[in-house]
Amino acid sequence: MSGGGGCCGELYSCVFDYSTPRIALIKSRKVGLLNRVIQLVILAYVIGWVFVWEKGYQEFDTVISSVTSKVKGVAATNTSELGFRVWDVADYIIPPQEENAFFVMTNLILTPNQTQRQCPEVRVQTGRCVAYNETVKTCEVDAWCPVENDLTVPKPAFLGSAENFTVLIKNNIWYPKFNFSKRNILPNISTEYLKSCIYDRVNNPFCPIFRLGSLVEEAGESFQDMALLGGVMGIQISWNCDLDKKYTHCVPKYSFRRLDNRAFDHNVSPGYNFRFAKFFKDSSNVESRTLMKIYGIRFDVLVFGTAGKFDIIPTMINIGSGVALLGVATVLCDIIIFHFFKKRYYYREKKFKHVEDYEELGDNGTIP
Amino acid sequence: MSGGGGCCGELYSCVFDYSTPRIALIKSRKVGLLNRVIQLVILAYVIGWVFVWEKGYQEFDTVISSVTSKVKGVAATNTSELGFRVWDVADYIIPPQEENAFFVMTNLILTPNQTQRQCPEVRVQTGRCVAYNETVKTCEVDAWCPVENDLTVPKPAFLGSAENFTVLIKNNIWYPKFNFSKRNILPNISTEYLKSCIYDRVNNPFCPIFRLGSLVEEAGESFQDMALLGGVMGIQISWNCDLDKKYTHCVPKYSFRRLDNRAFDHNVSPGYNFRFAKFFKDSSNVESRTLMKIYGIRFDVLVFGTAGKFDIIPTMINIGSGVALLGVATVLCDIIIFHFFKKRYYYREKKFKHVEDYEELGDNGTIP
Amino acid sequence: MSGGGGCCGELYSCVFDYSTPRIALIKSRKVGLLNRVIQLVILAYVIGWVFVWEKGYQEFDTVISSVTSKVKGVAATNTSELGFRVWDVADYIIPPQEENAFFVMTNLILTPNQTQRQCPEVRVQTGRCVAYNETVKTCEVDAWCPVENDLTVPKPAFLGSAENFTVLIKNNIWYPKFNFSKRNILPNISTEYLKSCIYDRVNNPFCPIFRLGSLVEEAGESFQDMALLGGVMGIQISWNCDLDKKYTHCVPKYSFRRLDNRAFDHNVSPGYNFRFAKFFKDSSNVESRTLMKIYGIRFDVLVFGTAGKFDIIPTMINIGSGVALLGVATVLCDIIIFHFFKKRYYYREKKFKHVEDYEELGDNGTIP
Repeated sequence: MSGGGGCCGELYSCVFDYSTPRIALIKSRKVGLLNRVIQLVILAYVIGWVFVWEKGYQEFDTVISSVTSKVKGVAATNTSELGFRVWDVADYIIPPQEENAFFVMTNLILTPNQTQRQCPEVRVQTGRCVAYNETVKTCEVDAWCPVENDLTVPKPAFLGSAENFTVLIKNNIWYPKFNFSKRNILPNISTEYLKSCIYDRVNNPFCPIFRLGSLVEEAGESFQDMALLGGVMGIQISWNCDLDKKYTHCVPKYSFRRLDNRAFDHNVSPGYNFRFAKFFKDSSNVESRTLMKIYGIRFDVLVFGTAGKFDIIPTMINIGSGVALLGVATVLCDIIIFHFFKKRYYYREKKFKHVEDYEELGDNGTIP
Repeated sequence: MSGGGGCCGELYSCVFDYSTPRIALIKSRKVGLLNRVIQLVILAYVIGWVFVWEKGYQEFDTVISSVTSKVKGVAATNTSELGFRVWDVADYIIPPQEENAFFVMTNLILTPNQTQRQCPEVRVQTGRCVAYNETVKTCEVDAWCPVENDLTVPKPAFLGSAENFTVLIKNNIWYPKFNFSKRNILPNISTEYLKSCIYDRVNNPFCPIFRLGSLVEEAGESFQDMALLGGVMGIQISWNCDLDKKYTHCVPKYSFRRLDNRAFDHNVSPGYNFRFAKFFKDSSNVESRTLMKIYGIRFDVLVFGTAGKFDIIPTMINIGSGVALLGVATVLCDIIIFHFFKKRYYYREKKFKHVEDYEELGDNGTIP
Repeated sequence: MSGGGGCCGELYSCVFDYSTPRIALIKSRKVGLLNRVIQLVILAYVIGWVFVWEKGYQEFDTVISSVTSKVKGVAATNTSELGFRVWDVADYIIPPQEENAFFVMTNLILTPNQTQRQCPEVRVQTGRCVAYNETVKTCEVDAWCPVENDLTVPKPAFLGSAENFTVLIKNNIWYPKFNFSKRNILPNISTEYLKSCIYDRVNNPFCPIFRLGSLVEEAGESFQDMALLGGVMGIQISWNCDLDKKYTHCVPKYSFRRLDNRAFDHNVSPGYNFRFAKFFKDSSNVESRTLMKIYGIRFDVLVFGTAGKFDIIPTMINIGSGVALLGVATVLCDIIIFHFFKKRYYYREKKFKHVEDYEELGDNGTIP
């Protein structure tokens, strides 16, 4: 008799499986049916879920990515301090190029004409305390003077019009295991289209040109709020591809998410800013600098994805496991018969008696 | 009788498996042989393919990497605009350091002495239209003036001699799961060798110093063509290591690939360029800038790899699946016997009759 | 009889499995016990190791990460060349922002007032050889003159006090498969705590503010030694999370490692440095620059991790494999009986004879 306790058959043809009349009594249509049902459920799981849904027949690889970006747009500001001024790419993109990110300045605290000398404030202290202004006395420091005053940020944001800037993101991906590479500018997109399109989740989901404001709104944020103190936005490009399908089915999927914490209870260095200086020399060769505390939005392009392609190894592993699971059918069947069927006591007795008969023979090796 | 329909044995010793004479008739040397052959094929697959070829006994980890690069080389140019001029690292590497990439300027459109004022062109419009030159009238704009004219790029590329620059790439990798780290400057490489070597796929495959021109050619591209409008090159370092082998067997493998699209039908922002400005102040404290539209090649160092090391889990999973696959042998054997053997009708009748006999006993539980 | 050679039962209830007296002789308590023990060992392995220890019931995903950093600190230097000078963030962080790294200048070779002309040294040669100084004659070159002399680096390091600088690292992670995101500034940390805490492996393991000196020491290095020629430090943030547990159990784990090679036998470009220039124009519009060979420590923030969450697929695969492994019990049992039990010759003879009996029947299909 087969493994499952003399009642449930195995895998393929449980019902053929009776060799002696003595145990056949516990075989019946019910048992056969139960076993079949359990087997069918497991088979349906193996085929339906593992193979059809989760693609258990595929080998997987994770993406290798390279990103370049190019921002376009000009802003104009008119302040008492700077007068009318135009800001172009070379002014607001700092550093001028990065690998998987780009930074757009949205707000600014300028401290022009700093030179190395002593002035009133609180950094490297000289010990002498002097008048900071008419009412307040602070300690004199050696520093780049005058010292930056960053207690208040311009409101509304200095370069709030950065909202209307656009960025072209070029992304090249590669799956080394399958030597499959593709670009986010899809081959079927015409140059004409690219020159005028703007990404839109519904109508232009494959246009690689994004309006910064829309991008932030897509993530459920307000650009003008974010522009004040800066922040970090994630441009997520997902490249989940089934390489068993056509080349054209492997396309990027964009999503947007704010990455920094805007929660008010964790406002240690809220937003995103850094300090940057332009250095100058006057005619007498004395170095001065224009210090800029730059608030802005850093856009991190996060590329991720998995590609699957048919491969014999995972297929076999999954078939193997599936087959083994079918074996579980027998066990389940046995457990059910043993514990839940009406005549379970009868069956059990029968079985154990049967076993004991043989076990009594001991180890003598004779044929009874 | 065992599961497989009363004919094919299982796993280990099918042929021992006859308990009653009634079914023994369908056992024969042919059936035994068939079963064995199927089992052997599956066994060969499990051992040969899964274990020997695909290393199914290993646990895997993906690489964590850190890259630094250092470019060397000096170029000289002689143009009517700039006169004779020497370009060194501090001139053509922008920004001066990046994490997993480095950018080498190869071409340049200079717009010196820009100041913020009004001049003829098409950005932020003032409404007044003035003469751009003697024949063309354009609208006056507030901008950094004079406005950049980037309609033509210098040809041949301004810094085409960047072809002969070399770069030393230092790459440190780490497999956290195995706490295994290694550098691409292998321990058996002498300092003397490093001071003179240049990477060559055949002769110096482990030299970490690359000539930029050779690197681009290795990817099947022309450096001078690429230098004109810039581009993105991938320096791929593959660290696929079998950590069950010796430490010295884990070595980097370099390959090169162009990452941007040089196809002419998708020439939206072809190549790679960005704008960068140097800021100056004159004696009357008015800010001016030298705008540079910099074309060049960005070299992205893409490090990837998987390390495998013996681990009991995947070994057991694969053995388990393999064993289960052996069970499939029985099923296959049955199918073949049932459907393709000569006397299949006879066998089938025999079997089904046999089953029916018992099924007629119904659920009464008596021994027939 | 079941698969295992007519002796060892299968999976669930080997001992019930005797249908004919002729083979029953080799069944005994010993055999049953052996089989059970082997099964128990395998079962213990499957449950204990695969499921409890290695979480075989989980689906896994690797981390997507975004890092920002903010260094704080001011240093003062007093040299004959530069006089007393204060260095702040805008001076020593170059470039002002990076994605997954930050660079802190620790040492410096300044070459101020370089202009494009001819001077004695060894780069682009003019052919004329002139006096380099009173005793040495070198060949005249076209270059940025005076040519940089980087034969000796300042010792001790110019900005050795960078040791006391602190850095706030903000890290946002995301597991796309589970749409789980978290920050390294944990929600239960108060703003008050963040304003004063400094990371410490034992007492403040979740404080995201690091003192640079402690960070280097934690990796077993000396900051002052490293400051001389620069180097690369890895700040490793591990996010291994069991997402079946509470949200609060998923926390970052920091570790530190030096990534560049400090071995003295591989001192090709030891440490880490790059060249950077500030450009100036004098009143007659001639460009000059201050060349800086900047030595410093680049801190690479390496974020890695795997999150696991219950999923039916790997669970089923592992159960399947486990069940299949139980099948191996039978095989092992057979092998042991065959080869190591006392009466093995008797058993074998019996078995093979038995087989031969039937095999002699050949293919005639009659019942003997």
